[in-house]
Amino acid sequence: MTDVVTALTQALGKEIVCAGDDVPARNRRDWTAPEVLPLALVRPRTTEQVATAMRLCHEHGTPVVPQGGLTGLCGGGRPVEGGIALSLERMTGVEEIDPATASMTVRSGTPLEAVQKAADEAGFLCPLDLGARGSCAIGGNLSTNAGGNRVIRYGMTREMVLGLEVVLPDGTVVNSLNKMLKNNAGYDLKQLFIGSEGTLGVITRAVLRLWPKPRTVSAAFCGLADFDAVLRLLDEARGGLGATLSAFEVMWPSFYDLITAHATGVRTPLAGRHGLYVLLEAQGSDAAFDDPRFEAFLERMMEEGVIEDAAVAQSQGDIKAFWALRDAVAEWDQILGGHVGYDIGLPTQLMDEYALACEQAMEARFPGATTVCFGHVGDGNLHVVAHAPGHEVQPYDEISKIVYGLVRERGGTVSAEHGIGTLKKPYFAYARTPEEIALMVTLKRAIDPKNILNPGKILSL
Amino acid sequence: MTDVVTALTQALGKEIVCAGDDVPARNRRDWTAPEVLPLALVRPRTTEQVATAMRLCHEHGTPVVPQGGLTGLCGGGRPVEGGIALSLERMTGVEEIDPATASMTVRSGTPLEAVQKAADEAGFLCPLDLGARGSCAIGGNLSTNAGGNRVIRYGMTREMVLGLEVVLPDGTVVNSLNKMLKNNAGYDLKQLFIGSEGTLGVITRAVLRLWPKPRTVSAAFCGLADFDAVLRLLDEARGGLGATLSAFEVMWPSFYDLITAHATGVRTPLAGRHGLYVLLEAQGSDAAFDDPRFEAFLERMMEEGVIEDAAVAQSQGDIKAFWALRDAVAEWDQILGGHVGYDIGLPTQLMDEYALACEQAMEARFPGATTVCFGHVGDGNLHVVAHAPGHEVQPYDEISKIVYGLVRERGGTVSAEHGIGTLKKPYFAYARTPEEIALMVTLKRAIDPKNILNPGKILSL
Repeated sequence: MTDVVTALTQALGKEIVCAGDDVPARNRRDWTAPEVLPLALVRPRTTEQVATAMRLCHEHGTPVVPQGGLTGLCGGGRPVEGGIALSLERMTGVEEIDPATASMTVRSGTPLEAVQKAADEAGFLCPLDLGARGSCAIGGNLSTNAGGNRVIRYGMTREMVLGLEVVLPDGTVVNSLNKMLKNNAGYDLKQLFIGSEGTLGVITRAVLRLWPKPRTVSAAFCGLADFDAVLRLLDEARGGLGATLSAFEVMWPSFYDLITAHATGVRTPLAGRHGLYVLLEAQGSDAAFDDPRFEAFLERMMEEGVIEDAAVAQSQGDIKAFWALRDAVAEWDQILGGHVGYDIGLPTQLMDEYALACEQAMEARFPGATTVCFGHVGDGNLHVVAHAPGHEVQPYDEISKIVYGLVRERGGTVSAEHGIGTLKKPYFAYARTPEEIALMVTLKRAIDPKNILNPGKILSL
Repeated sequence: MTDVVTALTQALGKEIVCAGDDVPARNRRDWTAPEVLPLALVRPRTTEQVATAMRLCHEHGTPVVPQGGLTGLCGGGRPVEGGIALSLERMTGVEEIDPATASMTVRSGTPLEAVQKAADEAGFLCPLDLGARGSCAIGGNLSTNAGGNRVIRYGMTREMVLGLEVVLPDGTVVNSLNKMLKNNAGYDLKQLFIGSEGTLGVITRAVLRLWPKPRTVSAAFCGLADFDAVLRLLDEARGGLGATLSAFEVMWPSFYDLITAHATGVRTPLAGRHGLYVLLEAQGSDAAFDDPRFEAFLERMMEEGVIEDAAVAQSQGDIKAFWALRDAVAEWDQILGGHVGYDIGLPTQLMDEYALACEQAMEARFPGATTVCFGHVGDGNLHVVAHAPGHEVQPYDEISKIVYGLVRERGGTVSAEHGIGTLKKPYFAYARTPEEIALMVTLKRAIDPKNILNPGKILSL
């Protein structure tokens, strides 16, 4: 055992610190390969134990990789050689729900689904939602600034945070568990830690903002002629559905055709084929007023020729079926075999032209390639799924250069919601200027001068 | 002329740089006293000129105080002795409005009202609004993270920003003029500069998020028995009015009685007296559905006894009259004579108890004192106006110790929206822990190692 593991074990006990074969396979990687065995796994139960672990690792100059639910897609939670894995998995639970401020205080290892459930039982909505809800931890959602399907209505995770408790690389505990929507006393420190993928501090607790539960949900699956019609519908929906607009998901035909033809258990909502498809959703507060308003809006869009055809959900089952089609992304393995997925961001009006350019560039390089686009168009976020035929292992770098190269030319971003981690580091400079990256390095050096916290993720120092 | 002024004049010309008597009175202070004559006033027309000015001041180690509309209430824009005032007043104008991403790109010296007008003419809403709209600059709103009346619906200024262009203390231009709602490629650098009162960088341009224009506005002025009823109404309004809820302004009787009795041109909306008063507003997207919903909600609140009495606006004139009562804060000089105003923050449920404690503590120390409370209760933000009778000059420090001392005991903040500047620095530690302040100092030292940018504001280094 190395010095630091001895020191950690002496300070925290064997129940908290384990090494070698005792480190479970799950703590050796996130959803990306390969596995890395850390020097030791530390699973603290309290903020004080996190602080002790950080202080000792700081003294020894030992790298520390914070871990949440380990559902990340970019390698952010993967251990580093010779470093400690610090898992928050035992720091779970909702500490308080405060109805007057509409906030809840949670420990960072709590699974997102448990957070959602606790909010729901208290009569509130925690609007953050994503596919990994059952396994991902809220601390991981915070450190990656998770997105999801309803950003257009509620914002990213960042917008849902009122306060944080964070342990700095030297073990200092910074308690900023603010509950107030407005607090302009100095710098807004929590912003540093949200979305920095565990490179600046370890989030141990958070105060989350809660919203009123929607009392009614309306949804429609629409077929449109072209992207101009999509932009018109988006503009009209923002105005006509106002703040009730909760999702505006666009699917290109490459997506719709493949999914409706091959995915299991997916219903085809529309009879004909269209140039583009939109899943439109609104969350209201009063069915007596909001449901008729949604239907009146759709009727007007049909009359004005913005929508060619639409299926309006008549039941919760219909809404689920629409989302099942949109969320059938877990089916790509079965449909395409090997493939690479991207979460790029683009100025909205460039998306359709991008989708075509990407498909053409993929076809030129990999004849017979499949390139599928869909995404949160109202948020400037497009998902791309690409498959190069005849490859045992998909040529990740070559495909990425095509996908990200076209993003760079259009002033987009290489990550709208998943983060950079290690996987996207080679393409980070496609989305950020040298001055931006230099400023990030300045921040990293100031807060973590020994570069021990999640080193090598996002930035190279 | 000192070296730095010579260097600035040589590089930028006399049209950009002036000194001594040529420095207008307006650039010698913000809305707080006293005046300070800067070494020189620099009024650049381009980002490059801002960068040149910062580079030269950095070389000379000369302090620089950025200035916007100079409507700040805490001394943040007041020049410092021996330093340069860098006014953005000539960098005005809207560069672009992009309907597809619902965003606009503005230069930071643009008055807020001009920003609002440009958005309106393009069919969008810029929801940021405050009393100083005609004089304040958007760059100042950004650097102070301005609040205002509709935070409950649209968030603080921070939530309205998609991208920034910033000049760092050494003259480096960081261009982060992102237009996408979602961009998780590394640290969210813009957050550093929003709300840091010009101590970390000079904001030169911004991309602002736009919202759809509300198509209908409903408002009611309500009388309630007590604070429990106010909390109940807030909870019901969040749920029942949902995302249309755009203002929840509470006035204590001390406020209501004084304003309705003494302010000029203010109508008394309710016949009787009540324990507390609430101005409730909802912004909808469709009058056919949203207006009846608002009325149905109010009727239910009356029936259930949450509201004792309510006046519902029948016209735009009524809505204006309700707001005139709430916004009659410019009248305090006339009503009270000398007074001190505060923008404290508190967990919502503690506000009524705080208001009483504050009144009692003021009365105990200054018999016959007037203590008036009102504010954005849904946002955790309370305004306090205090007057100690028989004082030529109001005893600011003594009153502040009472007002802020009670805030500290309740875990509140000394500034919900105006910022710290120099005026609130003595009370900054009432609201932030030593660890939080130390981390802010770490950031300041990393980005501005020579401490030349707005030195002495917020933090003491």
